[in-house]
Amino acid sequence: MGSGGEQEQQQQHVVECAHRVTVPESKPFMESLKKNVKETFFPDDPLRQFKGQKPSRRVVLALQYFFPMLEWLPRYTFTYFKADLVAGITIASLAIPQGISYAKLANLPPILGLYSSFVPPLVYAMMGSSKDLAVGTVAVASLLLASMLGKEVSATENMTLYVQLAFTATFFAGLFQACLGILRLGFIVDFLSHATIVGFMGGAATVVCLQQLKGILGLTHFTTSTDLVSVMRSIFSQTHQWRWESALLGCCFLFFLLLTRFLSKKSPKFFWISAGTPLMSVILGSILVYLTKAENHGVEVIGHLKRGLNPPSLTKLVFSGAYLMTSLKTGIVIGIIALAEGVAVGRSFAMFKNYHIDGNKEMIAFGTMNMVGSFTSCYLTTGPFSRSAVNFNAGCKTAVSNVVMSVAVMITLLFLTPLFHYTPLVVLSSIIISAMLGLIDYQAAIHLWSVDKVDFLVCISAYIGVVFGSVEIGLVVAVMISILRVLLFVARPRTSVLGNIPNSMIYRRMDQYPVAQSIPGVFVLQIDAPIYFANSSYLRERISRWIDEEEDKLKLTAEASLQYVVLDMGAVTSIDTSGVSMLEEVKKNLDRRGLKLVLANPGSEVLKKLDSSKTIDIIGREWIYLTVGEAVGACNFMLHTCKPGSGDTNNDANHDIKCEV
Amino acid sequence: MGSGGEQEQQQQHVVECAHRVTVPESKPFMESLKKNVKETFFPDDPLRQFKGQKPSRRVVLALQYFFPMLEWLPRYTFTYFKADLVAGITIASLAIPQGISYAKLANLPPILGLYSSFVPPLVYAMMGSSKDLAVGTVAVASLLLASMLGKEVSATENMTLYVQLAFTATFFAGLFQACLGILRLGFIVDFLSHATIVGFMGGAATVVCLQQLKGILGLTHFTTSTDLVSVMRSIFSQTHQWRWESALLGCCFLFFLLLTRFLSKKSPKFFWISAGTPLMSVILGSILVYLTKAENHGVEVIGHLKRGLNPPSLTKLVFSGAYLMTSLKTGIVIGIIALAEGVAVGRSFAMFKNYHIDGNKEMIAFGTMNMVGSFTSCYLTTGPFSRSAVNFNAGCKTAVSNVVMSVAVMITLLFLTPLFHYTPLVVLSSIIISAMLGLIDYQAAIHLWSVDKVDFLVCISAYIGVVFGSVEIGLVVAVMISILRVLLFVARPRTSVLGNIPNSMIYRRMDQYPVAQSIPGVFVLQIDAPIYFANSSYLRERISRWIDEEEDKLKLTAEASLQYVVLDMGAVTSIDTSGVSMLEEVKKNLDRRGLKLVLANPGSEVLKKLDSSKTIDIIGREWIYLTVGEAVGACNFMLHTCKPGSGDTNNDANHDIKCEV
Repeated sequence: MGSGGEQEQQQQHVVECAHRVTVPESKPFMESLKKNVKETFFPDDPLRQFKGQKPSRRVVLALQYFFPMLEWLPRYTFTYFKADLVAGITIASLAIPQGISYAKLANLPPILGLYSSFVPPLVYAMMGSSKDLAVGTVAVASLLLASMLGKEVSATENMTLYVQLAFTATFFAGLFQACLGILRLGFIVDFLSHATIVGFMGGAATVVCLQQLKGILGLTHFTTSTDLVSVMRSIFSQTHQWRWESALLGCCFLFFLLLTRFLSKKSPKFFWISAGTPLMSVILGSILVYLTKAENHGVEVIGHLKRGLNPPSLTKLVFSGAYLMTSLKTGIVIGIIALAEGVAVGRSFAMFKNYHIDGNKEMIAFGTMNMVGSFTSCYLTTGPFSRSAVNFNAGCKTAVSNVVMSVAVMITLLFLTPLFHYTPLVVLSSIIISAMLGLIDYQAAIHLWSVDKVDFLVCISAYIGVVFGSVEIGLVVAVMISILRVLLFVARPRTSVLGNIPNSMIYRRMDQYPVAQSIPGVFVLQIDAPIYFANSSYLRERISRWIDEEEDKLKLTAEASLQYVVLDMGAVTSIDTSGVSMLEEVKKNLDRRGLKLVLANPGSEVLKKLDSSKTIDIIGREWIYLTVGEAVGACNFMLHTCKPGSGDTNNDANHDIKCEV
Repeated sequence: MGSGGEQEQQQQHVVECAHRVTVPESKPFMESLKKNVKETFFPDDPLRQFKGQKPSRRVVLALQYFFPMLEWLPRYTFTYFKADLVAGITIASLAIPQGISYAKLANLPPILGLYSSFVPPLVYAMMGSSKDLAVGTVAVASLLLASMLGKEVSATENMTLYVQLAFTATFFAGLFQACLGILRLGFIVDFLSHATIVGFMGGAATVVCLQQLKGILGLTHFTTSTDLVSVMRSIFSQTHQWRWESALLGCCFLFFLLLTRFLSKKSPKFFWISAGTPLMSVILGSILVYLTKAENHGVEVIGHLKRGLNPPSLTKLVFSGAYLMTSLKTGIVIGIIALAEGVAVGRSFAMFKNYHIDGNKEMIAFGTMNMVGSFTSCYLTTGPFSRSAVNFNAGCKTAVSNVVMSVAVMITLLFLTPLFHYTPLVVLSSIIISAMLGLIDYQAAIHLWSVDKVDFLVCISAYIGVVFGSVEIGLVVAVMISILRVLLFVARPRTSVLGNIPNSMIYRRMDQYPVAQSIPGVFVLQIDAPIYFANSSYLRERISRWIDEEEDKLKLTAEASLQYVVLDMGAVTSIDTSGVSMLEEVKKNLDRRGLKLVLANPGSEVLKKLDSSKTIDIIGREWIYLTVGEAVGACNFMLHTCKPGSGDTNNDANHDIKCEV
């Protein structure tokens, strides 16, 4: 061991020249727990503004936190009001026909669509933090409601129960949304990736358009399935039932709507054309039907709408009986879909105007809005993209535009409902189709293909699942693929071989930088992920395969054999007990092959855990370096002064194991 | 723009001094797909050995791949056989009493336990790649089988159907295991982390011990629940039914078994004492009962065991009717639990002897073994830790020890079954308890606490779930916590501020290295994870908060204001479309604040995607550097020659968005 001692001294020298890597002091358990909980659930640090404030000021801030209205209302000016008034009237003209159409889509009485544009916007105006979001019902959630509740209760046969279940589902949706926000679990929404949403929305829009063929063609019997095959079979099996009057009217209005949409797309200044067209179509269609008495010639009309404001519906919620699970499940599914759209829309517009939206706070606002809605005869509302975009383009300044819309809807409910008696359903179908065509975002799909093939796969799977299966199947498929993708990401982290960039101490991936050169006798491997239970087995086998391959290659070229394996731990931000055992196993395995394990740049988390599990002593504190460059330098020094790997890979592996019978 | 041009020229100079970062050439789609699929599903590259071999040799290698026996049998020697014979007889002496005990635990006829130690070991000997694994039934899977099937069919009232369902569940378990192996989805097992398994196994062992109190106390009525509260209530509600004869016998044998286990733990040389004790206890107990006629005084005995080998049971599998879902669900749950234990045990011993185990191949072997087992009256088998440890300590060399055990069990089945007629059940209970106490690995739990608190939480939750809820609840809780942990890991990657280590170009985390110094005007942030949909919103908000905090700090200290934000992308190994949009948004946000975004060390994946989505032009190719050092160098150069952030943060943010009504 004489030469061994000398070797250690020399190594000591090299180590002292290099930067020292020490184990950081471990913090008290409660302190690090607090820090982790904060980082996980409060990454936006919502309490920051409360620091160093007086108690009275804190109360005001807390009130402002939950009711952002209190923050901007005192500074509200008449200039703002003028802008909000214009925007509010514009979105109201869109909200009335869309509200009626989507309620029909959900198989609910059309009046519920108007009710839903009255109360929820008022709640959101108080609690929401977005200045641009316009509250309303959405097509996809309406369709989901119809398809999920329709399985249990027929809307035509038992309308009372169906409406009760719809309110109950809305209540559960709101409760679920508020709970997610309060428990700071908003990140769950992030797991619905953009690609999933593009595919799912496109599919849902296709399905909704297909359903509208019933209205356009004036059919009375129609399949209850939503998939393409069933719908096509249903339509072409009753060609003799097609009503040309209805189809003609539908196509004319659809053409009119699409034309104005095309015009407004050309220049954003003409947004009001496309925003006003639906209401104009409704008025034109109603007049036309009234004049031609077309309701007697196969053109169905809305019929009588009750005048008056939202009746209370608290007593209509059913929390007992056989349908509780149905409404709970429906509520959770539509709740999360509505959240995903609402939060994304709020965030996008906030980014345009450079203000901040707190996702969890928004969820509480959406949740309260839907719970209050379910008590006042409204069904599920959120922030639809189309209406919010109109609001934004109309120059809204604050949530007051929602209040204006609400007042406009209130006036409609109080005085104008009889005017909708002659509105033909086919016009509503045209309005839905023209809105839905905007949701089929084929350009986004092309973009996904060009940037990321897996994202495209996720997107197209969701689309196909919705169109050929059902809305729920599509959703499940999309969520499963997204989660599978996360698990694969986690289970298969990347490892790569590093080489030296000539004339520098820099080491980079050899497959990315062809100039990088390998170092004789030293193998540098970078692990690009936290090491924990989900990937530790994979990493152990992958590291061993890298070394096998490298040794095979060296044998062929008859170069100097491998002596050192340097693991670059720079990206290993955390490690769990499985990861620590994995490193121990790698160390044992390398020892048996006569190789030395060297670690470069381990993070503080990793160092602490290696220390507390005593693995650091198995690896040897002197074999841990600050940079790959210094680690390789030390290895090179050792390689040229002495030959390791001959005698000191002694009895680490104790072959006796305890018998645990 | 004159000074702007000059500035660009100067910058050009700095860029040329630094290393260039170029976008790597993108590979053809099929090639990169092939590479990714290979890396994901074939990380161990099983086809490597086939390369460059003759066709005839390839057939031999393929046969050897599926039947590893063909590989070692030609080289098998008599010396090996002597060692395997000793090991085989030793594990047989353990297998017979354990087989009977565990079958009782699964509420199955005791003879099935012996059948299960006859056929499956023969199959494994041919197909398995572990040299040390001893095949047999396990307590936890037996208990799970009893509790999951017992909910649907009572074992006492309808034994025929119960046994049929047990065989069917075993078949499904085998099918599921084989499918996982064939589809290369073995990594699913990795998601049951070590901590989960420690807690789950400990809880299951506790529950099994509690169940044995029925046998020890000689009770006839007992609760069907497995939780601590129900069992304790059941026991103390019938204190008058306790049989002291049974309890005395049980305690004596338990003491005897624990004593020998303690002795054998002291020195591994005495492993055979602990290995032989169960059989000795059975023999002693049987003789004692036979002599004292104790079966007439409250000591229950096994009774008649049918002589003869396994009858075929192919016709007993039921794939139709109401119980299909029950057996399918049971099969999948017990299949994955058995796999987790078997694969982990195989890997541990392979590591001791330094040979390699292919997890997916093992799964195919386990699956075939259980499918064949279900055709020959066996129920679920795997590689139990206790029996494999005895096998290892007894000096087994190859899987022939399993064949020896199988032959010994065959002889027992053919000639010795009548000898077990007088075996008291209480001895079997003692054997189970003593085996189970070894599974409660409190030292592992202490180790988890000292190394990783979250792992400890996972472990203790699984334990509490099993002991106070039920085995299934514990399993669900443990899997949920593990998956939640993965999702949290994924959704909340670490970001950290880097500082300069004095007198070097090295940048390291400032919280880890207190010597690291910040650079005036430049803020260096490291992102420690791939950026994709699950974390892109979080990262966007976290980056913005870091900058807010830094600006607040600078305001207080009146230092030079921030001009550049350098993102160290070294650990960002991949990015998806959501991640790309996130970077675009960060860029826009920084532009609005008058800050410049600089990227350091992006990987090839990231560069390719930034290029194909044109984001690289938004960021500017000249703002991408090879190292943080070079990026900061360039920023410093710009800071001292000109003032950016004043005029060139122009109209990136196009406030017109398209109206999509």
